Amino acid sequence: MDHPFLERIEAGLRAAIESRNLAPTLDEAARYALLGGGKRLRPILAIQSCIAAGGSPADAMPAAVSLECVHAFSLVHDDLPALDNDDLRRGRATVHREFEESTAILVGDALQCIAAEVALESPRNTTRIVKEILEATRLMIDGQAYDTEGIFPADVTDEESRLRLMHRLKTGALIRAACRCGALAAEAEENVLQRLDRFGAAVGLMFQIVDDVLDETQTTAHLGKTGGKDRASGKRTFPGIVGLDSSRAEIARLAETARDELIPIGPNADPLRELVEYLVMRTN
Amino acid sequence: MDHPFLERIEAGLRAAIESRNLAPTLDEAARYALLGGGKRLRPILAIQSCIAAGGSPADAMPAAVSLECVHAFSLVHDDLPALDNDDLRRGRATVHREFEESTAILVGDALQCIAAEVALESPRNTTRIVKEILEATRLMIDGQAYDTEGIFPADVTDEESRLRLMHRLKTGALIRAACRCGALAAEAEENVLQRLDRFGAAVGLMFQIVDDVLDETQTTAHLGKTGGKDRASGKRTFPGIVGLDSSRAEIARLAETARDELIPIGPNADPLRELVEYLVMRTN
Repeated sequence: MDHPFLERIEAGLRAAIESRNLAPTLDEAARYALLGGGKRLRPILAIQSCIAAGGSPADAMPAAVSLECVHAFSLVHDDLPALDNDDLRRGRATVHREFEESTAILVGDALQCIAAEVALESPRNTTRIVKEILEATRLMIDGQAYDTEGIFPADVTDEESRLRLMHRLKTGALIRAACRCGALAAEAEENVLQRLDRFGAAVGLMFQIVDDVLDETQTTAHLGKTGGKDRASGKRTFPGIVGLDSSRAEIARLAETARDELIPIGPNADPLRELVEYLVMRTN
Repeated sequence: MDHPFLERIEAGLRAAIESRNLAPTLDEAARYALLGGGKRLRPILAIQSCIAAGGSPADAMPAAVSLECVHAFSLVHDDLPALDNDDLRRGRATVHREFEESTAILVGDALQCIAAEVALESPRNTTRIVKEILEATRLMIDGQAYDTEGIFPADVTDEESRLRLMHRLKTGALIRAACRCGALAAEAEENVLQRLDRFGAAVGLMFQIVDDVLDETQTTAHLGKTGGKDRASGKRTFPGIVGLDSSRAEIARLAETARDELIPIGPNADPLRELVEYLVMRTN
């Protein structure tokens, strides 16, 4: 994804690590985990939501960097042997394979902490933004617990509902928070915040269903992570439960919902519209 | 330790979990990790520092609960097989032995997140308190990285300096933050904040040296965790580097420093004075 704010996001991520003076091994592992590529979807959503709501990119930059730190922390811990046991991430060894498992645990912890520290630097609506990011982080961890443990609330019984709950928490919460934080950073009016909230919820679920479909249909080399692993390891996935065709129909439906929420916002939301098209069409 | 605010602290810790509606396994593991006893030293230090600085216990309660959540998270992750590989904590199985290793990783992550969420509920000096707790959390993780990796900054060459750096980060930072947060919760004047800061730094280092001495001199049954493990596993400890006698002399010196800082504060600091005596004399 080529994006006008990508360089500023990367600089912000670098600064988040470099300003902390971490222990040597932690510092190296944090750079590896955070600066090793990635789509930067959450930072881009935060910044573009802020712009859509009438703010400037600088207003949303701390939240943007914070959200990517949370995302990076979650990838490092989810890849651990006791969780998904993945060797490959973004075409490179996962953190516990490149370093020690202990380093991966500690650098995940450190990135979670740094995420909250960076969010505190938000110039406007500071405590609300920090609160949003923390709540989304907790929901994300909750989602990973459902995914790992497979124990669900008593009233969530069918497979599709369980999968939707899991996706909403594990992937959706942080993507939705990105859009909400962008709106909060712009001190958006309540109705704009609500629109970007629903936009984020639709995009979050859509993103994860696209991910599930790609895991089934793309090769490992193309994905930069182990393809076909979800179904092979017996994971709940959208195509696994409702089939590929219904998954693609759901993706189209969610993209439509996301677009509809942007209509009243006008041309400031054009980059968000383009982002939806990119996310529907992406192949890795 | 019998303490007048212990019941309120326990109620605050329970509420911190119960109000989050965590996934079933995470919820159970969080209760196990957080509500399974412990001295509650950091909450008590926060509350008593707040009282010493002229505040009320309620002012410091969110910070107190938050600090204990950070402490609990650190114990769960430090006990993991890839780190200290401990089976026993407070006389019971460690979280990864009682549950799954995956649950221990995720519940540590959740407790770290909840810690910051609770700190945000501080009624006074909110963002400064959150910032203090986050910075101390990061330094604590840093200290654990030094302990685990054994790689130190180039200018820290002798064993005693390395040990002091490690203890200052791994144990000292959070204890010092407890005293600072108490002062901040009371909106203390700068000179009182500085006194409680130096008090906390002395108590933090003292606490860890006492811990090192107890690990050498007490049995597993008495400690409720595996005794003699530090030296057996080749860990840096104070008695291991400077001997038992010098360790005890250092404890006495730090207790004196701590007491001296309290003199100008007067009788409001009496509970902190008693706490120093307890910490010097404790046997587990």
